[in-house]
Amino acid sequence: MAETNRQLKLQSRPQGLLAPGDLQLAAAPLPSLADGQALARVKYLSIDPTMRVWMATDTYLPAVAIGEVMRAFGFAEVVESRHKEFKKGNKVVGLTGLQDYCVIDADKRGSFQKTPSIPFLSDTAFLGVLGVTGITAYFGMMDIAKPQKGETLVVSEAAGATGSIAGQIGKIHGCRVVGIAGGAEKCKWLTDDLGFDAAVDYKQPDWKEKLAAATPKGVDIDYENVGGEIMHEVLHRMNLHGRVVLCGLISGYTKEDPALESFATILRKRLRVQGLIILDYAPKFMEAATQLGKWKMFGKLKDRETIVEGLDKAPDAINMLFTGGNIGKTIVKV
Amino acid sequence: MAETNRQLKLQSRPQGLLAPGDLQLAAAPLPSLADGQALARVKYLSIDPTMRVWMATDTYLPAVAIGEVMRAFGFAEVVESRHKEFKKGNKVVGLTGLQDYCVIDADKRGSFQKTPSIPFLSDTAFLGVLGVTGITAYFGMMDIAKPQKGETLVVSEAAGATGSIAGQIGKIHGCRVVGIAGGAEKCKWLTDDLGFDAAVDYKQPDWKEKLAAATPKGVDIDYENVGGEIMHEVLHRMNLHGRVVLCGLISGYTKEDPALESFATILRKRLRVQGLIILDYAPKFMEAATQLGKWKMFGKLKDRETIVEGLDKAPDAINMLFTGGNIGKTIVKV
Repeated sequence: MAETNRQLKLQSRPQGLLAPGDLQLAAAPLPSLADGQALARVKYLSIDPTMRVWMATDTYLPAVAIGEVMRAFGFAEVVESRHKEFKKGNKVVGLTGLQDYCVIDADKRGSFQKTPSIPFLSDTAFLGVLGVTGITAYFGMMDIAKPQKGETLVVSEAAGATGSIAGQIGKIHGCRVVGIAGGAEKCKWLTDDLGFDAAVDYKQPDWKEKLAAATPKGVDIDYENVGGEIMHEVLHRMNLHGRVVLCGLISGYTKEDPALESFATILRKRLRVQGLIILDYAPKFMEAATQLGKWKMFGKLKDRETIVEGLDKAPDAINMLFTGGNIGKTIVKV
Repeated sequence: MAETNRQLKLQSRPQGLLAPGDLQLAAAPLPSLADGQALARVKYLSIDPTMRVWMATDTYLPAVAIGEVMRAFGFAEVVESRHKEFKKGNKVVGLTGLQDYCVIDADKRGSFQKTPSIPFLSDTAFLGVLGVTGITAYFGMMDIAKPQKGETLVVSEAAGATGSIAGQIGKIHGCRVVGIAGGAEKCKWLTDDLGFDAAVDYKQPDWKEKLAAATPKGVDIDYENVGGEIMHEVLHRMNLHGRVVLCGLISGYTKEDPALESFATILRKRLRVQGLIILDYAPKFMEAATQLGKWKMFGKLKDRETIVEGLDKAPDAINMLFTGGNIGKTIVKV
């Protein structure tokens, strides 16, 4: 066992990409364990886009404090234990932080879990396909996107840890799957190895035309990891009543993008936003009018009208909606 | 019967608010009816924000063509008929257009419906509370928002035809309802007459503080009619897993707002956008890992890792995610 514990601590909040010194390496002594704690040697660290968010600001988790060991998922092996559940030799995944050794607390802070020993499965799989990124893709697809056979799925950042799994889950469910990634090597991996139906290299100037050509029936599901111009373009290709899994907005993590701010709120707060055009409900209008009529009859619903006299006043009446002149329903009496 | 049919025709697409001449009044002769048609005298016209959208561009309906009678919902009475279903004296609602008389075609283009005669109910109610705007509020609330007792609902443009009904439907379902409207008169109407729990006047400089004070438990449902700064602020007040009914984005109808463009797409295409943070699924991680493991074992799921050696290289590995250096899962080997 080493005598010291190397730690990468957050020294300053990065502007854009990480600069040298934002994370600084320091050596701490190995902690002495209290009752109920275990010490684990970190073997592998999961590197995820969300770490950049944790460095910047409070979101779904508090930002990492200046001077604290940088938060990260990792795979570790218990080397010493006074913990009830974790014994020496146990392999675990959890929030180890960017360091050589981590302490597993009695209260399981850091949500450590033992990993099973499965033949042919490497330790690193518990950080990838069977880890947080793979599991994210699983629930994003199964719980939110709910892919149906024959639908078209577009995945952005498709060659990333989450996107590559999300796309394959789409293939398993019979979707046409189109990945967006940067560079020929990534695109080739998506189509040749992972079985994506098409891959679009967003670094090519004609990528929008390529995306259109790859989605001849439009897009039913957008598994969105990027945001910005790429999301914008995919949204334009979407079919009515499509679903957008807002999993990441990586294009906005290293630069300011005011247009992304509301989407970042939707992501962080796990909101569900749904567009409404009343024409879709035409067959059920009578159901609504009947219920509204009952509520109105029983005094539970009041209405008010702003009546404008004369067909020639209709243009003014339209403008009134935007200048705030009306209360309740605006009607022109012809 | 008048000899001529006055019509407001779209002469130019408005920039911002309607300018004189964008809609021009012209007189046409009364149409002679073909077999299967009916002629109706327009009595009331519904004035809706969406008309401004119809003037500008193709959306969920084609834009009104230059030179065409401006599209509008209206209430009309049949004055002459060679139609199987509509008889003289029938009262109807449908897309009458901004004119004195409209033709009801055999194929029901314009989706005309007869209105029932209900005591104490004015004709104009079929354009308001029992009309398209009321019905919009009904389905937005019942089908998308699904209000639960004790939840907080915020309605923007709350004193408008749709917002005022949406808020009251929230009250019927036991919600705390907060309306956002412009001016003291509208706010007073919301609280004193409609029973809203609070109303926030967005024309007051401290409206954001007022909104916060009126929503002490945050916001569960945003019935969104406005977009822009108001939506932005409401989203920030929202609780985890809240719902946003994207019904209108009136703040963007008369001016360019690039930040609204993606939301306009979501609205028009009736997309469902949902944020995903994987922590919510923690109790079900094992279910996902088991299924992912099976898929991987049967060769349906492939993964790839970009392994970076050395704890001290973790900052570079993080940056690699944003500069595109990685393929698949990025892992640091400590």
